[in-house]
Amino acid sequence: MVNKVKTAITPTRVEDYPEWYQQVIKASDMAEKSPVRGCMVIKPWGYSLWENIMHVLNDLFKATGVKNAYFPLFIPLSFLEKEAEHVEGFAKECAVVTHHRLEKGAGGGLVPAGPLTEPLVVRPTSETIIGDSFSKWVSSYRDLPILINQWANVVRWEMRTRIFLRTSEFLWQEGHTAHVSKEEALERTQMMLDVYTKLVEEYLAMPVIRGRKTASERFPGAVDTLCIEAMMQDRKALQAGTSHFLGQNFARASDIRFHSAHETEEYAWTTSWGASTRMIGGIVMTHGDDDGIILPPKIASSHVVLLPIIRKDEDRPKVMEYIEKMSKELKDIQYHHRGIDVEIDERDIGGARGWDWIKKGIPLRVEIGPRDIAENSVFVGRRDKGHKEKVSIKKDRFIGEITSILDDIQKSLFDKALSFKEEHTIIIDDKKEFQEFFTPVNQEKPELHGGFAKSFWCGSDECESEIKQDLSVTIRCIPFEDDSGTGKCIYCGKECKGRVVFAKAY
Amino acid sequence: MVNKVKTAITPTRVEDYPEWYQQVIKASDMAEKSPVRGCMVIKPWGYSLWENIMHVLNDLFKATGVKNAYFPLFIPLSFLEKEAEHVEGFAKECAVVTHHRLEKGAGGGLVPAGPLTEPLVVRPTSETIIGDSFSKWVSSYRDLPILINQWANVVRWEMRTRIFLRTSEFLWQEGHTAHVSKEEALERTQMMLDVYTKLVEEYLAMPVIRGRKTASERFPGAVDTLCIEAMMQDRKALQAGTSHFLGQNFARASDIRFHSAHETEEYAWTTSWGASTRMIGGIVMTHGDDDGIILPPKIASSHVVLLPIIRKDEDRPKVMEYIEKMSKELKDIQYHHRGIDVEIDERDIGGARGWDWIKKGIPLRVEIGPRDIAENSVFVGRRDKGHKEKVSIKKDRFIGEITSILDDIQKSLFDKALSFKEEHTIIIDDKKEFQEFFTPVNQEKPELHGGFAKSFWCGSDECESEIKQDLSVTIRCIPFEDDSGTGKCIYCGKECKGRVVFAKAY
Repeated sequence: MVNKVKTAITPTRVEDYPEWYQQVIKASDMAEKSPVRGCMVIKPWGYSLWENIMHVLNDLFKATGVKNAYFPLFIPLSFLEKEAEHVEGFAKECAVVTHHRLEKGAGGGLVPAGPLTEPLVVRPTSETIIGDSFSKWVSSYRDLPILINQWANVVRWEMRTRIFLRTSEFLWQEGHTAHVSKEEALERTQMMLDVYTKLVEEYLAMPVIRGRKTASERFPGAVDTLCIEAMMQDRKALQAGTSHFLGQNFARASDIRFHSAHETEEYAWTTSWGASTRMIGGIVMTHGDDDGIILPPKIASSHVVLLPIIRKDEDRPKVMEYIEKMSKELKDIQYHHRGIDVEIDERDIGGARGWDWIKKGIPLRVEIGPRDIAENSVFVGRRDKGHKEKVSIKKDRFIGEITSILDDIQKSLFDKALSFKEEHTIIIDDKKEFQEFFTPVNQEKPELHGGFAKSFWCGSDECESEIKQDLSVTIRCIPFEDDSGTGKCIYCGKECKGRVVFAKAY
Repeated sequence: MVNKVKTAITPTRVEDYPEWYQQVIKASDMAEKSPVRGCMVIKPWGYSLWENIMHVLNDLFKATGVKNAYFPLFIPLSFLEKEAEHVEGFAKECAVVTHHRLEKGAGGGLVPAGPLTEPLVVRPTSETIIGDSFSKWVSSYRDLPILINQWANVVRWEMRTRIFLRTSEFLWQEGHTAHVSKEEALERTQMMLDVYTKLVEEYLAMPVIRGRKTASERFPGAVDTLCIEAMMQDRKALQAGTSHFLGQNFARASDIRFHSAHETEEYAWTTSWGASTRMIGGIVMTHGDDDGIILPPKIASSHVVLLPIIRKDEDRPKVMEYIEKMSKELKDIQYHHRGIDVEIDERDIGGARGWDWIKKGIPLRVEIGPRDIAENSVFVGRRDKGHKEKVSIKKDRFIGEITSILDDIQKSLFDKALSFKEEHTIIIDDKKEFQEFFTPVNQEKPELHGGFAKSFWCGSDECESEIKQDLSVTIRCIPFEDDSGTGKCIYCGKECKGRVVFAKAY
């Protein structure tokens, strides 16, 4: 029997991955369930991560000419119905407002009153309501392009929810653009996927596969949906951002027309693209270990916690003064668009203090006691290393090198995730092997399976839906770069071109 | 007959103030009505103003230890009912979600389906849902204080709406704190009013009167409501921020209890405080003139527009190169937490171009043509001066002095608003004079009246509501500093202490 290493999180990832996820979120103090079905409370440690993501995305958006705006929370039912596929895609998960006041009912309690003449849907996405504005803003080709983004809450009524990954209300940004030509709209669709790739790979340290969705996985109403897909540690895929080419579908539905330079009247070409708080779930599941979450430094809620080690009360003033001074020095250092964020934790709760910060995933823990001060040194633990691996460094050297230490942690997280993804992404051309790859090793742990399979697909809805039914596996994307030539469809054996990525997914 | 000066906005403020407001918003391109009853679309020029306000407030909040978080959009009806006065205050304006999907109805169209067992109210404010979280977060006095803020959309169903000032959906921040003692909660209530005062006076350039609300004007469920009130150019008051001391009312309702240091179990003392997109309406009505809005530089959507003057096509490359270079130099200059924001407007639409930027209220317009370049100078117009008052300045001097020019504009806006407020704030101790002060000069322009009256009030609900009924005038606040001694109530003549501020209000 192997000695079991004590971990901060129970169960471990191997023991029960879904439960590990719930526990690791709880231990990090990032978010919690609310009494409102399917809605979450995002606590400060989780929200600041979101704020950092917003900051990075705002800069990236702005660099491409996009401006922020804000549109109504409510969408009249008739608007949603303007695009047939669109409303069908969202009808089953809409929160519907039907009344505009409360009054005393027969039983004495309050009941909804003031029925609305037309029900209002709480936005699940805003193509139709934003399209209405665009139709007023555009009359000539000179008014185009329109490049708009909104930061908003959206509601999609989910029956089974999980914090960050699948909640009835979530926070996101949704970009909406209108263009004179198909080419320009296609270029924008690709450009925004590139922005998401940059955010997710460079800031969230999550390597992704890029490609387009099959018809059945497309955004309801879109002509083409581009996506980035990341691999979680249970080898399932998480869609981390999508960019939709909407053709003229929504322009027709919302009547976004313009006079062209050639004196003709034409419908605009539109795009939409979004990324949400779901990404936070992705960060947790990509980098977390059995001691808790691990935050990539570039978007971490905070970078470093200073932990005074005080055994005698008389040492307190000196240690705290040293720490306050060090905190100020660190905060003045610029690190990727903001100063170094510093926490100071004076609590006298023994070893639980250090573990709290490990579970919160802060990149660096620094212990400072009288002896360290005497030696002008600090005792540093990196969250990406084992919790016992702490090293003593001269304080000035630590301050001088902190940005490169953080960059090193960022890189190590990305590299580790990349190796994991590559290790569990397999080319499979044999049907039986394919089925075995996706069959759980252990019936008690259905989450454990092979990972991503790159296999040939004939392009038929039939094979796609048969695979989904048999194995709960979907085509995550048809990769952009594919030099795999031709082969036989993994299910029907028909000759076809290019492998696609199959996986189980969140 | 006096020659009428041509203005960019029709009607002028004097001709029809309410209509001027609608027109000036429209001309500024800040926001517009939406097809959803009472909801607005905030366009980029208005939204960036809001982003700058958020930025300033976030910094001010953070400096007092407040952290951002996010709570559910929906509040179960039973939660709202926990505090009797609270629910009564909001029952008449609640958007109520009663269903969670849509399905084909008898007529073929979609109808609400999946009725909820308990209706959900779209948050009009979040005391009760946040209180529920606080009750779980607090068990010992060591867990206090809790200092939380959320940026969110809220919905209060309004029958008569006006963009920014009164809309069914608006954006705001709501702060919520919990404390061990009454004293600490009272101190926090005052502290956050100070934060709002700083924002509104120093950044929005709107002078305010500070004080507390009367019982009838308090936030539903609060023990005490502190407020800041500003004077608009129609001499009506606009409440620009409120900070509520909630006593233990909401702690009892939400069961926020803690073990004290003295081993007793006690209810926490809570506060809440908010400021909203309504402030943008206040900026418009405080500083706008008959040519459009005027943005205070510290929170302006953008600071300066560069306008190339190109009469011959061959001049274009040289002029644009000069402008691009100048734009870069300006953007590198720090001005109150951000770089100078620069617009470049190349449109060839004649004089309409300059007027567009006047109507948008940008602090500085800079014209640059070949002759200016030859002389190393630029032609500068300040938005706070007349539109013809433009001066030629050496380019390097302009760049060197731009931050002090902007500060000067900021100061001139505040000073002008302060003079206006002081001029129309009158001490009145005679009932007839009081009634005349609030009686419209012209029946066709009911908005024109005296302004703010400082008068004695006996403290009775009767006098307060009689005044409201007779004159549509309310007590805006009982000022903090009042050395007016004793006198006779302006309505009943009873001897009482301290004057209060009466006004018509938005």
